[in-house]
Amino acid sequence: MSRSAIRESLKITGQPGLISFSGGWPHPESFPVRELQEINRDILQNSAAFCLQYCPTEGLPELRKQLLLFSNELGLKVREEELLVTSGSQQALDLLSRVFIDPGDLVVTENPSFVSAIAAFRGSGARFLPAAMDTQGLVPEELSASLEELQKTAGGSSDYAQNMPKFIYTIPDFQNPTGLTLSVKRRTGLLEIAERFDLLVVEDIPYRWLRYRGKHLPLLGADSRPGRVIKIFSLSKIMAPGLRIAWIIGERSIIDKLVAVKQAADLCTGSFTQLMAAEFLRRGFFQPAVKRISALYRGKMQAMLETLQERMPALPGLQWTVPQGGVFIWLTLPAGMDSSEMLREAVERQIAYVPGTAFFPTGGGTNNLRLNFTFPTERQIRDGIVRLARVVRGHARRPVRLA
Amino acid sequence: MSRSAIRESLKITGQPGLISFSGGWPHPESFPVRELQEINRDILQNSAAFCLQYCPTEGLPELRKQLLLFSNELGLKVREEELLVTSGSQQALDLLSRVFIDPGDLVVTENPSFVSAIAAFRGSGARFLPAAMDTQGLVPEELSASLEELQKTAGGSSDYAQNMPKFIYTIPDFQNPTGLTLSVKRRTGLLEIAERFDLLVVEDIPYRWLRYRGKHLPLLGADSRPGRVIKIFSLSKIMAPGLRIAWIIGERSIIDKLVAVKQAADLCTGSFTQLMAAEFLRRGFFQPAVKRISALYRGKMQAMLETLQERMPALPGLQWTVPQGGVFIWLTLPAGMDSSEMLREAVERQIAYVPGTAFFPTGGGTNNLRLNFTFPTERQIRDGIVRLARVVRGHARRPVRLA
Repeated sequence: MSRSAIRESLKITGQPGLISFSGGWPHPESFPVRELQEINRDILQNSAAFCLQYCPTEGLPELRKQLLLFSNELGLKVREEELLVTSGSQQALDLLSRVFIDPGDLVVTENPSFVSAIAAFRGSGARFLPAAMDTQGLVPEELSASLEELQKTAGGSSDYAQNMPKFIYTIPDFQNPTGLTLSVKRRTGLLEIAERFDLLVVEDIPYRWLRYRGKHLPLLGADSRPGRVIKIFSLSKIMAPGLRIAWIIGERSIIDKLVAVKQAADLCTGSFTQLMAAEFLRRGFFQPAVKRISALYRGKMQAMLETLQERMPALPGLQWTVPQGGVFIWLTLPAGMDSSEMLREAVERQIAYVPGTAFFPTGGGTNNLRLNFTFPTERQIRDGIVRLARVVRGHARRPVRLA
Repeated sequence: MSRSAIRESLKITGQPGLISFSGGWPHPESFPVRELQEINRDILQNSAAFCLQYCPTEGLPELRKQLLLFSNELGLKVREEELLVTSGSQQALDLLSRVFIDPGDLVVTENPSFVSAIAAFRGSGARFLPAAMDTQGLVPEELSASLEELQKTAGGSSDYAQNMPKFIYTIPDFQNPTGLTLSVKRRTGLLEIAERFDLLVVEDIPYRWLRYRGKHLPLLGADSRPGRVIKIFSLSKIMAPGLRIAWIIGERSIIDKLVAVKQAADLCTGSFTQLMAAEFLRRGFFQPAVKRISALYRGKMQAMLETLQERMPALPGLQWTVPQGGVFIWLTLPAGMDSSEMLREAVERQIAYVPGTAFFPTGGGTNNLRLNFTFPTERQIRDGIVRLARVVRGHARRPVRLA
């Protein structure tokens, strides 16, 4: 395993003067500092005996209670034994890999997909069946055709389970890296495919509450009890990533296996930040934070989209996604251009992004790049996109009129 | 994988009225609450922008700096790139397993050894070469003989590395579960074996500062640069386990691999609790905490040893270890007695412990049990051991005079 492209890009991020569109980092202004001060004062005063102690692998009871309430409010029918607290969503992905993936097993991922999910699956030896996307997200018809093809080659029924993918991994809301959202019709289509081919779906939900336009679309299989769909929620984008609090919702038999693996992986997630999260939810800080943070990021996304529109050269094939929320915009350069090569020039101009190839498990993305708009300030976004437009223009090696 | 004996025992611990000798939990009185209140107030005031943010997989720079200073003060010659922060020592064990152990690989563990280390190694498919112990800890001569035997069967040089153990796992100070300490001579002997057979040593150091009598013995290979010995340190017992802060020291090439695996495992340990730990060390809170906590636990250990001495029946073979520190005493019942069977009667009398079998990776320990003396109060220890003595007496099924 080699250190990932994102991680190396994040190192560049530390350089003074550099405008980074690389990470998926929240802006520090989004952190609910006043609320956390209040919570920390109280829990160290009143609950030190248990918030500094070990806790059950499944999670601190106080947090599990709040997460069940939270799930119920979302309309999910979840029982206590169907929920597991994890040390960030990354651990959820790792635990799922370790429970479900044996070397050589197939998993379906959107193409492109989240680089650290790919890394976690690959760490368990996964092979990938990439599912094509368009502006409505993953295309069920194409996935269905690939699965039928697989089914044919899977041969007899004994090989079936072994040859079919272990699960379909999807980020339906404001996908990483594209920022695209799976349409309602496609959500239904995806679930139908999962039913038809008897596949599990892993629904990763890190950005759902960062919606800047339009209405929430239904969670996958939200009207049925956990079974077909395993859900990963996270507090990293609304509360703070430095607390590492996420949770998995799934069928009891699956949660039991995940708990056993988590126990050997880190014994338990820290009680202290779990109690911070529990109190954050219990005191009703979640929804006000969503409002405040969405307002902050809405303007940033708008600034990036506007500046892209104003400054990007009119090159054939050059385009970008227009998300309804989340933290990323996905840029496609004209065919033949190489975003990895271009990164050197970008860094010289003091801007950074993640080249597209990192997000394609089986190759591709040479002419793509991912832009984050939550971490930089609005001013940095405008300046940075102006610089990026110049780099693109220069790299396209075409005679263009300077703006 | 099944849920471990310890974890199930911990569930029993929740019962009101029950005196638990099961976990390895610190007593809440040991938590440096006042210091943490001061630290938390300051870091949320001054450092929210980075202590709530993502941080590098290697660890928060502020904590890494303090851990290097800490290591230097121990006399270790450690460089920055030889250190990795982990989410508790359990994660360190898991990462080491994932980097070093392929299914079927051998690892050497003390016999008995830490149940969750065994679980982590087993999770990667390890087989075990158990190393016999006596009251001076692991017996180098016996380990050496086993390794020679292995070497013979390993055959040609190409099979050598594959057939020999991937590492020797040891807890030299106040071992879990026995409470025993590896003598100075044996430390040298163990390192000589590691050199001779070209094996890595993993030195787990969770309890070192909980020393109630005698002087610190040298860390393994403390006078040489990291290479032969990988060290795992933890702040769980001196600061608080609910913060999940530990760290690994090892050769750069090893740390690099561990970092890559950790990145996919949980991206990074929480920045927030890392900054708490950094400030705890920077403000000089570590040594005063060691003094205060050692005083607290010294009395508890004494109370347990005294009550064992006063109340345990004089049965042939019944004995217990007399540790110089740590958190456990290890009890051996007369041959033929079964501590797992006896646990039911113990729980009826409202006491709990961990049966010995959990700690023997290849079988054994039927007549052993582990007793923790840090979590219960001194009063509970005295009452609990009185009850335990009655249970042992009853279970021995001998006519005895009641006290």
